[in-house]
Amino acid sequence: MEIIGFVAAILTTAAFLPQVYKTWKTRDVSSLSLPMLLMFFVGILGWLVYGFLKHSPSMIFANTITALSSFLLVYFKIKYGKNN
Amino acid sequence: MEIIGFVAAILTTAAFLPQVYKTWKTRDVSSLSLPMLLMFFVGILGWLVYGFLKHSPSMIFANTITALSSFLLVYFKIKYGKNN
Repeated sequence: MEIIGFVAAILTTAAFLPQVYKTWKTRDVSSLSLPMLLMFFVGILGWLVYGFLKHSPSMIFANTITALSSFLLVYFKIKYGKNN
Repeated sequence: MEIIGFVAAILTTAAFLPQVYKTWKTRDVSSLSLPMLLMFFVGILGWLVYGFLKHSPSMIFANTITALSSFLLVYFKIKYGKNN
């Protein structure tokens, strides 16, 4: 069962990383919405807590990485957004 | 426990919908990567199966909506991508 979870975790997490990389390289945050990023970040923290409560290694693994990625996007948006 | 899951589900799902709406309105799919979208879509299907195996109403709810959203993005990419 955890194999399905881990495959899902790797696919959705890996799909998210190019966005972080692209934003970091281009510093273009114009098309990103801060409320949306904050909502997503808080939502991921919720999934992380839920993963602990459900004793789900896949969810804890995936949501830890995604929480870091989305935190970076929030940080980039605030940092680079000033120049736009 | 399901309350945390549902709040997380609503936040992350709601954060995803503006992207679908924006793509639908602008028909601009140039910054979207097809392999990334397909990877994400398959990953979400994996989470959906995992949600059923874990008997998690929150995960089933969230991933059904996100699967539909990401399927739409794949469809838009293939349909509008031809004109670019």
